[in-house]
Amino acid sequence: MINKQNVLGMDIGGTNTVFGIVDARGTIIASGSVKTAKYPNFDDYVDSVYESLNALINKNGGIETIKGFGIGAPNGNYYTGEIAFAPNLPWKGRIPLADIFSKKFGIPVGVTNDANAAAIGEMTYGAGRGMKDFIMITLGTGVGSGIVCNGQLVYGHDGFAGELGHTVSKRNGRLCGCGKSGCLETYASATGVARTAKEMLELTKENSLLRSIPLEDITSKDVFDAAIQGDKLALNIFEFTGKTLGEAFADFVAFSSPEAIILFGGLTKAGPLILDPIKEHMEKNLLPIFKNKVKVLFSEMKDTDAAVLGASALAWELK
Amino acid sequence: MINKQNVLGMDIGGTNTVFGIVDARGTIIASGSVKTAKYPNFDDYVDSVYESLNALINKNGGIETIKGFGIGAPNGNYYTGEIAFAPNLPWKGRIPLADIFSKKFGIPVGVTNDANAAAIGEMTYGAGRGMKDFIMITLGTGVGSGIVCNGQLVYGHDGFAGELGHTVSKRNGRLCGCGKSGCLETYASATGVARTAKEMLELTKENSLLRSIPLEDITSKDVFDAAIQGDKLALNIFEFTGKTLGEAFADFVAFSSPEAIILFGGLTKAGPLILDPIKEHMEKNLLPIFKNKVKVLFSEMKDTDAAVLGASALAWELK
Repeated sequence: MINKQNVLGMDIGGTNTVFGIVDARGTIIASGSVKTAKYPNFDDYVDSVYESLNALINKNGGIETIKGFGIGAPNGNYYTGEIAFAPNLPWKGRIPLADIFSKKFGIPVGVTNDANAAAIGEMTYGAGRGMKDFIMITLGTGVGSGIVCNGQLVYGHDGFAGELGHTVSKRNGRLCGCGKSGCLETYASATGVARTAKEMLELTKENSLLRSIPLEDITSKDVFDAAIQGDKLALNIFEFTGKTLGEAFADFVAFSSPEAIILFGGLTKAGPLILDPIKEHMEKNLLPIFKNKVKVLFSEMKDTDAAVLGASALAWELK
Repeated sequence: MINKQNVLGMDIGGTNTVFGIVDARGTIIASGSVKTAKYPNFDDYVDSVYESLNALINKNGGIETIKGFGIGAPNGNYYTGEIAFAPNLPWKGRIPLADIFSKKFGIPVGVTNDANAAAIGEMTYGAGRGMKDFIMITLGTGVGSGIVCNGQLVYGHDGFAGELGHTVSKRNGRLCGCGKSGCLETYASATGVARTAKEMLELTKENSLLRSIPLEDITSKDVFDAAIQGDKLALNIFEFTGKTLGEAFADFVAFSSPEAIILFGGLTKAGPLILDPIKEHMEKNLLPIFKNKVKVLFSEMKDTDAAVLGASALAWELK
């Protein structure tokens, strides 16, 4: 009997799809990618992924060595194996991803959303190793989350649990892409940081390096660049963002009392500029029984590998 | 070998401790109680409980028929088996409840807090039967909660998960007994309803049946009595309370995507007066993917039996 020592991982993004073969230690043995946006027809997309990935597999021991295939995708549902009405993907309606790839490769396929995949990746290979209770928060264009309780990912009754980016930070606050108002994501994502910058620049006359950039063009990267040069307004933007996150985290802790909250994504590059206010305001807002107990950590996954590793980690659990 | 067909359940409250023998169908075969407040010395309390409960056991088949003993208590911790610094109990510091009763009776003993016990009771005997994902909310003097994900109670890394009554409904809002401000509990408990009544009566000149009661004496029961007589201000109080709960529930759903939120406790006596605004405002605030999916139900446990049944249900899971 051949030992099935490797798994496949794939992350489907609106622009690119990246995939790879991963071993049990979390090393990516081989990887590749296709342009998602180039395939408005889903069957063409599947053929293209199959062709590239199959070539990788054949060069690395063959399909007999592969235990399973984990896929992270926007709106990916663990229970149904589908992606459903994902706004940033070219294919409309429900796509039975797991079924299709399972038939193509003849191995078990699991699907979940990208933030859940990140949480499983962190638990298997990263900062969540050995933890049975933690919350993964991804701070990117949006705010995603994956929740682990008692060593298991929380999928909820319909597979869509863990939408913490859409809990309300400010009632009747900023309009969110989801149709609601005041969602955490509108304040604490990279986009949220840019919105905060715009608001602060419009509402005050305070001097700032950011005033040299047209309002509509300011990104979270610009705010970071200004902050590390000591720009006071830029520092205030990170303080505000961290405060908003810290306050939200205090409520998340009251829900599942995690050992740690693990942060991933572009905004974590700000380091202590974002981490310090998060910790300060989380502690300030925690119930006494939770104080000085909950770690806030940065992910230990490399940016470039995290998406594939996270998705691949799901494959170890498949039957 | 004797079939261990029954369990013991006990609920420790600040005033009374109630206990009983429960069969696998959730029938309380025999029950009794002692006055918690009468025993400032914990050893005396244990002796008194042991004496009463042992007499019940001997009259009902003997200790050989008992599988285990579940205890619900304020600040009860499932992992340590202790109650720790419970403000409403006569004993200070940490009390190793599970250890002590396990030695006394020679059977496994499990401890958790009252809201978690209610959730396990509901899952075993009540409205949560057959559900793997639901949230129990107790609306009493305070607001408690027990969260079930994937068929398991969420205890968190320290045993204290599920403090949803202390998530923030209004930033810098009403001062809470926990030391924080704006907690859900300050608005949506029986005490919160009385505070809302007081505020509305002070801030408006609106006519109301409640004006015949001294402000400091108004209870949630008074508000209910006025509301069913059609008193507009009293109806507004329930609308406000239900709205606050519904908004909070929308965030809870984003966390764990439960099949149902199950309500227990005094305020549920208000029936549709509280349920209708809860449902309306929860739906209004849900992410599109969660809309029209999540049930809001009243508990199916009888008030008088729920505490003992809930605690007893924990005993079936003990090893």
